[in-house]
Amino acid sequence: MVKHKQIQWVSSRTVERLALYRRAILRKSPDWGTSIFSHQLANLCGVTAAQVRRDLMAVGYTGSPITGYELSQLLESIGLFLDSAEATPVAIVGVGDLGRAVIHFLANRRPKLVVTAAFDADPSKTDRVIHGVRCHRMERLTQVLTDQAIEIAIVAVPASEAQIVCDRLVEAKVRGILSFAPAFLRVPDHVVVERLDVTVALEKVAFLARSPNVPRKKST
Amino acid sequence: MVKHKQIQWVSSRTVERLALYRRAILRKSPDWGTSIFSHQLANLCGVTAAQVRRDLMAVGYTGSPITGYELSQLLESIGLFLDSAEATPVAIVGVGDLGRAVIHFLANRRPKLVVTAAFDADPSKTDRVIHGVRCHRMERLTQVLTDQAIEIAIVAVPASEAQIVCDRLVEAKVRGILSFAPAFLRVPDHVVVERLDVTVALEKVAFLARSPNVPRKKST
Repeated sequence: MVKHKQIQWVSSRTVERLALYRRAILRKSPDWGTSIFSHQLANLCGVTAAQVRRDLMAVGYTGSPITGYELSQLLESIGLFLDSAEATPVAIVGVGDLGRAVIHFLANRRPKLVVTAAFDADPSKTDRVIHGVRCHRMERLTQVLTDQAIEIAIVAVPASEAQIVCDRLVEAKVRGILSFAPAFLRVPDHVVVERLDVTVALEKVAFLARSPNVPRKKST
Repeated sequence: MVKHKQIQWVSSRTVERLALYRRAILRKSPDWGTSIFSHQLANLCGVTAAQVRRDLMAVGYTGSPITGYELSQLLESIGLFLDSAEATPVAIVGVGDLGRAVIHFLANRRPKLVVTAAFDADPSKTDRVIHGVRCHRMERLTQVLTDQAIEIAIVAVPASEAQIVCDRLVEAKVRGILSFAPAFLRVPDHVVVERLDVTVALEKVAFLARSPNVPRKKST
């Protein structure tokens, strides 16, 4: 049993990398055995071994220079650090192609993060179940979020509607938003917004692919 | 007419931010007028004004301390820097929910980045047109990519198939890959991979939303 260490400060990039390390370990090759060295994990994730060691120190597990990190202990340490003790319910707004893809994608992937409610402005999509998630009318947003104690939401609506949806989510006491909408969202300081912007990512790939002088290594 | 400045070196984060600045400008509020100051652009994108000025110096446009950056000149400078002169054809592999959503999302969004071919292993999805893009059988991958001179590809297949697809893309001379698959992809040094990982992003949001001590500002 790994003890949870009280954390004073970590950067949001560390949080991102820890989630990435866990992903790498969960998808580990069967021939890895039961432990891994920092340089192996670093290699998988495109970071340096020193970075891996620093990040894992933040979760309070240092491993051994001889045997490396024991995988089950490492997963437990990262889980204790990243996950809340209870499963976190998540709402999604917008169940077009993208919203449905995201619901489908997340289903059963993380027991600690569960999409429990969907919303759409289009009446033909509401009052039914999509990939196992009930889709409600937008008018029910605050009520459902309150009833289900949902504080995390995914925004998968067109850019033109994103700010309005975002404002309604904030009113409904949402504290974290993952947005696919190609729009900047204005939120109060206590709300976290993370954007996954497909166009920006594709432009970056296209640019880097034809620019051999740009250093490729991401410092994810 | 803005002159193209020969660039020696920029970081991949700069490229990402430049794409972000352009996005912000293209979605600008109508009451902005025809120019913008670095602190305004910084504010929209969640970076510092000094960062904006440094990044824009890389594209060879410095603006004026009195009037700021002239928007049309700024867009032209960023475009000259980021975009290739010709439209870049893009392939997508995997036309499930997510792949279709991405095709739909990208349609007409960037005239310089055009999805011109789709591929899927499922025969029920191939030999037809999806959101305006012809979907081919996987066996035709190398042929179609060669014929259309495609060097950029989007991977939207399940994690278990991602590496195989990636290897085939590299064989077919692809140099840049944007992957939605929750898997690490091994590629030769000359190939760029950018991952948009929905689960990792959502875990990060959930963690930050309940951790008031973590600094929120993204250094994107």
